[in-house]
Amino acid sequence: MAAPAPPLPPQPTPDPPMTLPENPIGNPLFVRTRLASKDDVPSIHKLIHQMAVFEHLTHLFAATEASLSSTLFNAEPFQSFTIFILEVSTRPFPEDHHHHNPLYPPVVRIFNLDLPIADPEAETFESGEGLVVAGFVLFFPNYSTFLAKPGFYIEDIFVRECYRRKGLGKMLLSAVAKQAVKMGYGRVEWCVLDWNINAIKFYEEMGANVMQEWRICRLTGESLQAYENWG
Amino acid sequence: MAAPAPPLPPQPTPDPPMTLPENPIGNPLFVRTRLASKDDVPSIHKLIHQMAVFEHLTHLFAATEASLSSTLFNAEPFQSFTIFILEVSTRPFPEDHHHHNPLYPPVVRIFNLDLPIADPEAETFESGEGLVVAGFVLFFPNYSTFLAKPGFYIEDIFVRECYRRKGLGKMLLSAVAKQAVKMGYGRVEWCVLDWNINAIKFYEEMGANVMQEWRICRLTGESLQAYENWG
Repeated sequence: MAAPAPPLPPQPTPDPPMTLPENPIGNPLFVRTRLASKDDVPSIHKLIHQMAVFEHLTHLFAATEASLSSTLFNAEPFQSFTIFILEVSTRPFPEDHHHHNPLYPPVVRIFNLDLPIADPEAETFESGEGLVVAGFVLFFPNYSTFLAKPGFYIEDIFVRECYRRKGLGKMLLSAVAKQAVKMGYGRVEWCVLDWNINAIKFYEEMGANVMQEWRICRLTGESLQAYENWG
Repeated sequence: MAAPAPPLPPQPTPDPPMTLPENPIGNPLFVRTRLASKDDVPSIHKLIHQMAVFEHLTHLFAATEASLSSTLFNAEPFQSFTIFILEVSTRPFPEDHHHHNPLYPPVVRIFNLDLPIADPEAETFESGEGLVVAGFVLFFPNYSTFLAKPGFYIEDIFVRECYRRKGLGKMLLSAVAKQAVKMGYGRVEWCVLDWNINAIKFYEEMGANVMQEWRICRLTGESLQAYENWG
C-alpha cells in the first residue's frame, strides 16, 4: 500500500496550472470489519450504551459487560449471535494474526476524507496500537419458510457520531449482506423507526424494501413472565 | 383420564329436571404440542403452502420438502430454528416414546367443544393412528442488546382453518412463551399485518405490545445478490 501523500501547502492561484499528484490522498482513513470476540466486550458495552442514549432509551438499557460476556460468543460465528467490529486507523492495519478468523478474514477499505476526523473518545475506544473501534453490527440467523432458506436478521447497527456520513455504516451493512450471499441465504432483514427519514433513505439506497404493512409484536417483562406456569 | 360421556339423546322438556353428569364432556378434543422432527416435513410443507394461500402469497412460495429437510433440524432444539407441531385426536394420546424429547416433553390439553370438528383433510394430515396435524409454530433465538439476553422470534404460527377460534393458536403461542421464560429469555417477538385486526386483538389479549413506530427492512433477491462481489 502506498504511503499517503503529505497535505499540500496553501497555494496561490496557480499559473501555469498546478500539477496534481496522480493519486491525491489527503486524509486516508483505514477501516476494517472483523469478527468480534470476548475481548471486545468492553467496547461493545459502551457502543450499546451510546446507542441507547441516541435512541432516548437508556431506561431500557440493562446490559452489563458480564451479561454480554455470558450470552455472546457461545457458538460458531454466523450460526448464532454474531458481531462485526468496525475499526479505524490513520495508518495501514498491522499484520494481525490474532483477528484472522478463517470464517471471516478481516476486510479493509481506505476512505479518502476531505478533513481528518477529530475523535474525542479515541482513547476510550482504543482497541490496539493506533486502532480505534468506530462501530459494530450484531446479527443472527433467521429463517424464511416460503424460501425454505435461512437469512440474517440485523439487531443493531451503530457507528459512533464522529464517523457518521462517510460510508462506514454502508460498509458494515454490506459486510453482512455479502456474508449472506456467500452462505446461500435468502434475505437480510432489520428494523427502522418510521420517523427516521435519513435512515430509511439510506436503507432504500442500499436496495432494501421498507415494508409498510407489518408491525412487530413484543411480549416481554411481566407479560412474558405470566406464562411461567402455563400448561 | 375419564372416558368421555356419550352424547345425550334429544330430550323432551324434562320434568322432573334432568340430572346433569358431574363432568359433562360433550366433544373432547385432545390437543398436543411437541417438537417436530424430519418425519414431519411432509405435513410442515403442506401447512406452509396453506399459509401462503391464506396470505395470497403463493407467488413467493418456493419451499420443497427437500429444501425444508436440508435447512431444518440441523441443530439442537431452541438453539436454532425450532418447530412445535400441534396435533389433535378425539381420543387420549397414546404413550408415545418416539416423540418424548427430554428437551420438551409433549404438552397435552383437552378442549371441550360444543360440536365435533369436521376435518375435510384429516387423511392428508394424519400423523399416526387417529392423530392429525392441526398446525405449527416455527421460531428461533433472537437477541436484545439492551437486555443482554436472548429471546425467541416467531417466524410462523399457523392453525388449519377447521381448528381456528378454539384456543389452539393460543396454546401454540403460549408454549413458545413458556419455553422462553423457562430458558430465562427476555422477549418473544413476531410480526402481524396492520390490517389483520382480529390477529392484533388476539395478540394484545395474549399480553403483547404491538409496536407502531417500527418498520421492517428487507434485502432479498437481486438486491441482495448485488452484494456478492462487494469489498
